[in-house]
Parts: sequence; C-alpha cells; structure tokens
Amino acid sequence: MRSVVIDTPGAVRVTDRPDPVLPGPDGAIVAVRAAAICGSDLHFYEGDYPLPEPVPLGHEVVGTVVEVGTGVRTVAPGDSVLVSSVAGCGSCAGCATGDPVTCVTGPQVFGSGALGGGQSELLAVPAADFQLLAIPDGFTDEDALLLTDNLATGWAAARRADIPPGGTVAVFGLGAVGLCAVRSAIAQGAGTVLAIDPVAGRRDRAALSGATPVSGPAVTAVLEATDGRGAAAVIDAVGNDTTLTESLACVRPGGTVSVVGVHDLQPFPFPALMALVRSTTLRMTTAPIQRTWPELVPLIQAGRLDTGGIFTDTMPLADAADAYSMFAARSPECLKVVLRT
Amino acid sequence: MRSVVIDTPGAVRVTDRPDPVLPGPDGAIVAVRAAAICGSDLHFYEGDYPLPEPVPLGHEVVGTVVEVGTGVRTVAPGDSVLVSSVAGCGSCAGCATGDPVTCVTGPQVFGSGALGGGQSELLAVPAADFQLLAIPDGFTDEDALLLTDNLATGWAAARRADIPPGGTVAVFGLGAVGLCAVRSAIAQGAGTVLAIDPVAGRRDRAALSGATPVSGPAVTAVLEATDGRGAAAVIDAVGNDTTLTESLACVRPGGTVSVVGVHDLQPFPFPALMALVRSTTLRMTTAPIQRTWPELVPLIQAGRLDTGGIFTDTMPLADAADAYSMFAARSPECLKVVLRT
Amino acid sequence: MRSVVIDTPGAVRVTDRPDPVLPGPDGAIVAVRAAAICGSDLHFYEGDYPLPEPVPLGHEVVGTVVEVGTGVRTVAPGDSVLVSSVAGCGSCAGCATGDPVTCVTGPQVFGSGALGGGQSELLAVPAADFQLLAIPDGFTDEDALLLTDNLATGWAAARRADIPPGGTVAVFGLGAVGLCAVRSAIAQGAGTVLAIDPVAGRRDRAALSGATPVSGPAVTAVLEATDGRGAAAVIDAVGNDTTLTESLACVRPGGTVSVVGVHDLQPFPFPALMALVRSTTLRMTTAPIQRTWPELVPLIQAGRLDTGGIFTDTMPLADAADAYSMFAARSPECLKVVLRT
Amino acid sequence: MRSVVIDTPGAVRVTDRPDPVLPGPDGAIVAVRAAAICGSDLHFYEGDYPLPEPVPLGHEVVGTVVEVGTGVRTVAPGDSVLVSSVAGCGSCAGCATGDPVTCVTGPQVFGSGALGGGQSELLAVPAADFQLLAIPDGFTDEDALLLTDNLATGWAAARRADIPPGGTVAVFGLGAVGLCAVRSAIAQGAGTVLAIDPVAGRRDRAALSGATPVSGPAVTAVLEATDGRGAAAVIDAVGNDTTLTESLACVRPGGTVSVVGVHDLQPFPFPALMALVRSTTLRMTTAPIQRTWPELVPLIQAGRLDTGGIFTDTMPLADAADAYSMFAARSPECLKVVLRT
Repeated sequence: MRSVVIDTPGAVRVTDRPDPVLPGPDGAIVAVRAAAICGSDLHFYEGDYPLPEPVPLGHEVVGTVVEVGTGVRTVAPGDSVLVSSVAGCGSCAGCATGDPVTCVTGPQVFGSGALGGGQSELLAVPAADFQLLAIPDGFTDEDALLLTDNLATGWAAARRADIPPGGTVAVFGLGAVGLCAVRSAIAQGAGTVLAIDPVAGRRDRAALSGATPVSGPAVTAVLEATDGRGAAAVIDAVGNDTTLTESLACVRPGGTVSVVGVHDLQPFPFPALMALVRSTTLRMTTAPIQRTWPELVPLIQAGRLDTGGIFTDTMPLADAADAYSMFAARSPECLKVVLRT
Repeated sequence: MRSVVIDTPGAVRVTDRPDPVLPGPDGAIVAVRAAAICGSDLHFYEGDYPLPEPVPLGHEVVGTVVEVGTGVRTVAPGDSVLVSSVAGCGSCAGCATGDPVTCVTGPQVFGSGALGGGQSELLAVPAADFQLLAIPDGFTDEDALLLTDNLATGWAAARRADIPPGGTVAVFGLGAVGLCAVRSAIAQGAGTVLAIDPVAGRRDRAALSGATPVSGPAVTAVLEATDGRGAAAVIDAVGNDTTLTESLACVRPGGTVSVVGVHDLQPFPFPALMALVRSTTLRMTTAPIQRTWPELVPLIQAGRLDTGGIFTDTMPLADAADAYSMFAARSPECLKVVLRT
Repeated sequence: MRSVVIDTPGAVRVTDRPDPVLPGPDGAIVAVRAAAICGSDLHFYEGDYPLPEPVPLGHEVVGTVVEVGTGVRTVAPGDSVLVSSVAGCGSCAGCATGDPVTCVTGPQVFGSGALGGGQSELLAVPAADFQLLAIPDGFTDEDALLLTDNLATGWAAARRADIPPGGTVAVFGLGAVGLCAVRSAIAQGAGTVLAIDPVAGRRDRAALSGATPVSGPAVTAVLEATDGRGAAAVIDAVGNDTTLTESLACVRPGGTVSVVGVHDLQPFPFPALMALVRSTTLRMTTAPIQRTWPELVPLIQAGRLDTGGIFTDTMPLADAADAYSMFAARSPECLKVVLRT
Repeated sequence: MRSVVIDTPGAVRVTDRPDPVLPGPDGAIVAVRAAAICGSDLHFYEGDYPLPEPVPLGHEVVGTVVEVGTGVRTVAPGDSVLVSSVAGCGSCAGCATGDPVTCVTGPQVFGSGALGGGQSELLAVPAADFQLLAIPDGFTDEDALLLTDNLATGWAAARRADIPPGGTVAVFGLGAVGLCAVRSAIAQGAGTVLAIDPVAGRRDRAALSGATPVSGPAVTAVLEATDGRGAAAVIDAVGNDTTLTESLACVRPGGTVSVVGVHDLQPFPFPALMALVRSTTLRMTTAPIQRTWPELVPLIQAGRLDTGGIFTDTMPLADAADAYSMFAARSPECLKVVLRT
C-alpha cells in the first residue's frame, strides 16, 4: 500500500509499505478514504521530537472497514467509519469511561511509531469496537475527521475548563483545535469568549464563530474585559511557555487554565506561589476522544455546533510532501488540510 | 398610589392604596415603571387558590429606586432596577447561595398577600441588596422583567434537569416559562429539544428558537425520537397530572424530570414503583431567582440567549382588568403582557 | 439441581429443577455456595405482586464458576465469584456506565421470573464479564453477598441523596439496606445521621454504626434535630406512603429525598405543590450494582466501611421454607438470612 | 498591648504596640485568648520571604469579642470566637461563596504585614460577620484554632483533590496540615491513604489516623500500592520542587494533584508534556477558610473528624521566641504550638 512516511525533519515522502494484517480477533482493517494533517504531525516535521527511524504519519482517519476479527461486534466490512486518533484496549475500566488515556495498558496514538500511520491506504485498528465509530447520518468526511481528534480535543479542552454558565473564557491559539475550542465553549454555555492569536485571519474566523477577537497584549486585554478580575476559564491551545505564562496571569482567582497544546520537551517554569495564592487549577489534557462522541454527534446533528470553515485545503495523498510544506507555513489561508487516497 | 387588586376570582380592579413605607434599614422603595402578568397570577384569578381577602397582585417588576434604608449598599435612589419575584432575608447561609427558597426565615413572594403587589405605582422591597439588581447595560425593560421570574425559572428548570451535553430534552408547555426553558436548554448544551404544547402558535415560537415541535401524543413522539429510550431530560412547565404523568413516562431510565409549574393543591398520583425501577429523578423547583442573574446577564449581553418574542402585549396599568381577561384567554397571539404605570 | 421455588404467597419449597445451560458465548454457569434472602424476596411471599406461575427465587449469590462461554474474558472455571442481582447486556453504552438499569435492552433481575433463581445449586449468568466479580481478597462470603445487592443499594441510596459534607441525614427503615445506607452515608461524609425505625433492636444496630437513633414521631424528631430546618438529605429505605410522606415533610428546602424501597403497585399521593415550593428533589433508585463495586471494594478492604452485624442467621438451602418464615416475621433478632447449599 | 514581632529572620520578640482601633463599622476587636504558630509563619523566620520592616506575626486566633462596629450582625462583645486566617470584604460575590481568595478586593492574611498580627493581645478584624465564627458548642480552643487555618486547609486540599469514593490517595508531608489532610481524605471517602514524610514520628501519627505509612522512595511505594497505576489523587502539603515532582510522577492518568504548601518564590519546573500525555490536573489552593466551616463544624461535633493529637505544645505568649525556636527545629515531638495570652 501507499503510505506517508517521514525520514528526517522536513523530509516527508509517499512510499510503498506492506499491507497491515488484522491486529487480533478484536481488530479491523480500514481502507482509508481521507486522512487529515494535524498540528501535532508537525512535531516530527519540525524536529521537536527525536526521530530515530522513519515513521508512518497520520492519526486523523475516515474510511471503510474491509476486514474485522471474529470478536468485533459493532462494525462490519463495508461500514464507513471514523477512527479515534488515540487508542485503548477497549475492555478495561479506564476505557469503559471512554478515555483511552486512562487505559490500564496505556494509550497509543496512530502515526507516532507504535501503531500504524493513518495517512496510508490501509490502517490496522486494534480493539475496533472501541476505536471505530460508524459515521453518523448526515456527516461529511470532514465532519467525521473532526471527531477523530481536533473537535474532540477542543471540546474536551472546554469541558475541562470548568466554564461557569455565562462565564468569560479566553482562548489562546486559533488553529483548528483553538477554533473548535471557541465553538465548544459557546456550545457549553460560555458568555464572552476572547479569542487570542497573532494571526488576524484566524481571529476573524473566531469572530465569525461568535468570539470577541483580541489583538495586542493578551493579558491586558483579558483583564480589561473582566474589570481587572481575569477570565473565569482560560483555554490554552498552544501550550508554549509564553501562552502558559499568559494564561496563568489572566485567569481569575479560583479559575481554571485548560491546556491541550503542549509539545515542548523542556519543563515549563510554573509560577507555583502565584498560582497557590490565587487558587488556580491547571488542567493538562489529552482528549478522551471516544467519550466525546456521544456528546458531539447529537450536537452536530441538531445544528448546535458548527463544523464548517475548518478544512481549507484538499489534496491527494500522493502530494503529501507538498501538503506538509504548505501546512507548515501557517499561512492565514491554510487552517487544515485533508489528504484523499 | 394606584394598585392592581383582586377581590374574588375574575374580579381584578385598579384602586388607590396607601403608599408603602420603607421596610426597615435594609429595605428600599421602588417606583414601578413596568410590571408583567405571570401565569401564576392566574391562580387567584381562576380560583385555584383560596382568596380570603383582597390581594394586591404582581411579582414581576422593574422601576426606579426612590428611597433606601441606611444599610443598603448596592443601590441608591435614581437607580433603575429589577426586583426578584421571590424574596429572602438576604443575610443567611441560604440566601448566600442566591436561593431565597433556602432562606432560613422562609421565602416570600411579592403579590401573594405577604409582600406588596408589584402591579402598583410603588413597591416596598425588604433586603434590597439581595432583591434588587441594577438593570444591566443594554437591557430593555422587557429583558429585565424576564430576569425577575420567567427566564430565571425556565433557566433553573433546565439547570435542574441534568441535561447531558447533546442530550435530547422534552419540554412540556410552551408559555413564557416553557419557551424560556427551551432556549435555556439549548444554551446549556442540549441536542434535540422536543417542544410539546397543544397550541400550534406556541410550538411555532419554540421552533423559531431551535426546538423540534411535537404535535400528537407526546409520549409516543418522544419515544420515537429517541429510539424508544426516552428523553435524557424532561422539563415540565405545566405540572398538572397529565403532563407529570407523561413526563415520567417519556424520560429515559436514569433520567431527570424537572418541574416548574405545579399549581394543583391536590396530590399527584406518582407512579413510585415505575420510577424506582427506572431510577428516575423528579426535581421540583421554585427558581433561585437571584442565583440565576450572574449566569443570565452575561449570556444575554453576549447574545447567547434570546429574550425576544416573549412579550406580546403592552397595556397601561389602568387597564389591568382588560389585560388579565386577555391573558387568561390563552390565545395563540398573547404570550405575555406588560403593564406600564 | 435443587432450587427454591414459590408457588403461591407463603408457599416456598425446595424442589428439583433442570440444570441450567450456558446462556450464550458470553455467559457462565455458577455453582452456588451461598444465597441470601432479601427483603424484596418477600414481595412474592407476602402477595404484594401477582404470581401467575411458580417462580424460582433468589438474587443474592456467591459461588464458583463451573463453565464459561468462549467470549468470557474476566473469569474462568474455578473462580470464586459474586453475582450482581441486576443484570444488563454488558456491552451497551448504558452498561458501560456500570448501571444495568440504563441497559438499552432493559435490566433483568435474578429470581423474579425472567432470569434463574439464585437460591439454587446452579445459576446461569448471561454477560458474565459484566455480572460477575471475582471475590476480592479478604472478603467473606457474607461480605461478597452484600455487594450483590443490599450494600450496593444502601450505598447508591446515599450517593443519590446529595449529602453535603457534614450534612444531617435521616434514614427511614433500618433493615439490611437501611443499615447499609446509614454506614454508607457516614463513609460519604455525613454529619449526624438520624436513624428511624419502629423496632428498637434495629435502631440499636444503627446506633452502633454511628447513627443517632430516633424514636417517636419521625418528622418532629428530624425538625428538632435541625433547628426546624429539616435534614439536608433523607434516605427512605422503606418506601411506603407513610415513610415517603414523612421523608418529604422532613427534608429541608432544596434538599433531596432518596428512595430505594418502593414495592407498592399503587401510586403514591405526592404533595407536588409543597415539593415545588420547597424545591425538593425526589430520587428513585434501583441500584447500579456493578458501578458500586470499584467504590465499595477498596473501602471495605481499607476498613472504612463495616460489613459486620448484618447477617444474623445461616441455614441450609434445604430449610428455605423455614428461613422465609423466620425472615418474614421481622423479629428484632433476625436481620438477614443466608442459605448455604 | 503585647505583640509578637519579627525583625529579621530568626529574630522574634514580644513587644508593646499600640492597641488596634475598630476597622470601620463592619469590624470588630478581639481580645486574643490563644494564637497558634503555623508552618507558614516560618517563612519570615527562615528568610524565605523578604522582610523589609518588622512584621507582627500570627494568623491563627481564638478570643473574645470586645468591641463591634454598628453594622456587625452575627457577633457581639463577650462572644467567644475564632478568626479566619484569610480575610475578605465579606460583601462581594466572591466572598458570598465563602472563599476570600475570590474576594473582588483581594484577600488579606493576618500577620503578614497588611492586617494585624494575631499573636498579640488584641486583634482588629475587618468585616467581622465574614471573618468571625462563634466557637461552636463542644469545641476546645485547640479545635477552634484548627478551623482558622490548618484543618480548613487540609480539608480543602482533600476536597480539591477530586478523591473518588474508595480511591487511593497519597499525602506528601505530615505536619499539621498534612495530618489534617489525611483525616479529611478519609472523612471524604478515600480508601487507602498513603502517608509520606521523612520523619518516622509523623508517619506514626498518620498511621494512628488510619493511613498507611510509607517509608523509602515515595513514587515507587505509591506505584507498588496501586498495581503500577498511580494514586487516584495526590495531596502535596509540602510543595517544594521534590514533592511536586514526585506528586506528578505518582498520580494515575486522569488524576489530580492538590497542592497546599508552596512557599518557594522560584518557579517550579513543571513537566508539562508528561502531564499533558497523562491528562493530569494540578490544583493549587489557598484554602477557602470560611466555606469549610459549615462542613467541618458538624463533622467534628458528630465525631466523624478527629481533632486530637495535633497541638503538642502550649506556651505563654511571652515565650514566643522560645516557641518559634522549638517549632522551627521540626522535631518529631513538636507538631504544633499554641501561644496563650
């Protein structure tokens, strides 16, 4: 099969790799129809993480089931499905909560070396009953792709931000996840949502979704918008030292900073005493993808949560190198790219 | 001052009554600018409750503070304010939670005999710091009137319905409170909201607010819309034996029925065994008016919660008898009436 | 195999019945070692419910697995196990929460006609991975039996009573479930627990568990103990019209009445208007047995929750008729009976 | 009046200072009967914080009201009271939740330079209705002193640790606050509580309170006790880089680390990526002292929460220098010292 592989930072290519085999009786093989590129795919691409050997990339996948093991109950060959980017064993108490992060065997992420890469023609999926969801009625492939990672992550970021009804929320970073967090916060009952990003085009997208765009110094803007008190909740969809520091500085006493975007291998200098004096909660989150589905599907179907305007580009899988190059440029026009097989 | 008084069922008149005096050092006198008629005002009008002596009516009030006691901190003469329909002492642990129902001295309702009637030119308000709210920036009098009772009640009904994100909600009764409950449920993250009322015009209003109107047998319709499982939450804004029975019959196992509309003095025949087998929660609610304000004000200001289309009629206080007669007819056209002094 | 069967009210006998067969590939057969008699077994015995044909009784079971289907993962022949009294399909979203009441195929109870009776030598258990729990280290059979129903129910009653830390709780009915509710409420952080039962010996047991026994009129006693405010939470482990009425009368405004004991087929005359004025929550509960296990097992193992003093009598299965007769007499000495095969 | 003052690190003396005057109409003057030394008093003593000028010390106080302003409602001269160590304005929305940390005017701590020092003969208390609590029936002065800070803090640490019923909790640091956290975690429904401290005598005290003492490497011990999963909740009552690092390393995925002991002015190197991958919540807490009282008072009165064994030493206020010297030595025998006027 054809598969997107990265050899060294910046060097993405499409190559032939062996077809995957069924990963046990609870597994499935999915023929990939579309796979998106995620901001976290750029970590290898930009050299954030070590890359000791070539890695097949991709963890946002929709496709068609072509084979299932004998123990699979909920999907069958021919079903159109989406695949959770994070996988769990599917049968432990942790997975029963819908959160593979709490899987007792440990979570695994597609396209990071351990499991197969989703930007391929075929993908082996272990514990298919847990990892796969039949694409719900009325969903486009792009809608479904958002459930594999970015919208689930933005939604979880908001859920874990303890947003009080009507509360003011600040969102740092308005890429795909940040934009999803803006929309999720509103759907969860936020009042004013302050949208912070250095790129004007991204702020404009957030404004169209109901947020109040913030330009200029973020902490000052948040404090001014809240009578000097700070936001009730802050969502940091960037997670670098600057945004973390600003997030902690602009959350009100007793409030929560919810973070879904860290990638730095170095520790963050956490202002512990300031946070203690202000009774701050800092929530780090790898999204419980599967748990978000029963919440997100009906909201999208009822029209309460907009999924439009996030995918800006579609390219064939064969052009993956160009797609990565374009996405990594972070232009205002390109928010998210889908590769089609 | 001029005041609306009811003598016997159906007999509403406007009469002169003595001006109220300041109810202690924590009290205030409000010059009423507008007072709305509430569905619960009809209980006396329609003979639901005994009426041993004439009662000054009205508990939904906005106006201007004309006098305050020496202990009042948050409002001053000249301030434009709204008045909570339910009053508490303002200084006990119960009132500290924003819920006068839990006031240790017991809650009191304006216009029900104990406190003064709000459909008057002047209203004495005890514990003014607790009962009064300066009308927020950008609010019309009608917006403010909704915070005194109906929207606070619809909002509380939804809050107490334990709506899971994306969950299907059924709302029985689409008068002003029910319509507010529909909008509140959506603002709180509901998925599909099934709107139930025998009057087509009321269902149409709910549909404009994002609900799915239900005509025909309600229980059947709710079960059909939920694969036979029942709604995750049911809000009963009517509260008679029929709607309570239907609400309990169409909530899913483990779900909650939230009731804000009872007026019958007779007990309701509660199907206890069925409810036990299905682990049903039944929540009866007199709204914690004051507690809803910090949630509702920013939501309305941010445009997340629509306050339009509820007040259908405006009349002078002097025409209160006609206003009651028109409102009691429950025509599709007349949803809520405001009396202006 | 030998099995306890009821033919008509009061007529319990031990008889030969066919051995059960494996209920599908996810099922198991358990050789029963001990089965307890539950208060709810008395409903057939005392004619509360219709009994159109003989019913094998019993839903509180511990034993040894003798056979499992090919799909069973968590237990194997030879394992000593306890069996949930309430069964679910084990694979739906409802069962994933640990609550068979929310099973999409509907819950089933052993010993009530649908599934087999547990007071037998063998018991067929569907969806064994969901219904069975290997008996935890250090547990006696009696400890394990409590997890099949009574302690799980008392625990759930307390969990669903919304007990605030330090809050005063009233418990109506001090049979096995009520006594478990007393202990559970304390383990969950209750302050004073008022224990109400007409039988002095039962009140004495509750007092030994840390409760304050109440004799005389219950409502008066609860109000006196709470400065006239009412209990923060009330647990009704009886559930007849009298205790429900008293429970609603002695809960404080805004409080919760949690009910786990209804058996009357007639509706309960619910004082809806009073409950509305006081913002009362009424929670009816069939316990989510399986969900309670991860909470109860470590608490028992850590010595935080006492399981002693509940089983007062042990008899051979062959003497089931005598055991029922003794248990139904509700003497102060006999709180709970276990039958051993 | 006589007052304990610190001039430079290690230099504590008792000196004459002017009697305080009533801090406004909502304030009170308390004649101090006893004032305890808290671990946080050592920050000035040991030079952790800059000390630009002499500071009157002490924030744990019980005494008798000798004067109140005209606006004080809940206490009167002659009342025996305890004083919250953290003060708020008492009338804002933040204070209405019982948490002075969220006071819109900002919280203030006695004995830290802003407000007066409690280790004095007299103490001026602003917003007395909020800061003072009449000493509850049956409380000793030592019980009451624990409500001013240490038990409230340990209790809040546990409350903010999201302890699931039966969950395993690790507590780092077994000084007065840590020991209170151990007892609080148990009262809140914890299962096994692993008690970690380098001092054997402190571990022994925790063991007497129901904890499992841990000696040797803490992370290893916690992982071994939890099948390699980590504790459901970790309470860090020390808050230095070592304990914070270990706390984050031994909490299970999805779990919470609750911190109440930071004093280092330097940032903590927070392993953000590891915390993100494990969905860790880090909660920093300055205790909402006043909010804990309605929970703690009935628990102590009902005998659910032990207050014994914490105060090990009583000395006259005049011997404050010796008391500080002894307390700072952190001997196994000396856990907490009370100074009596």
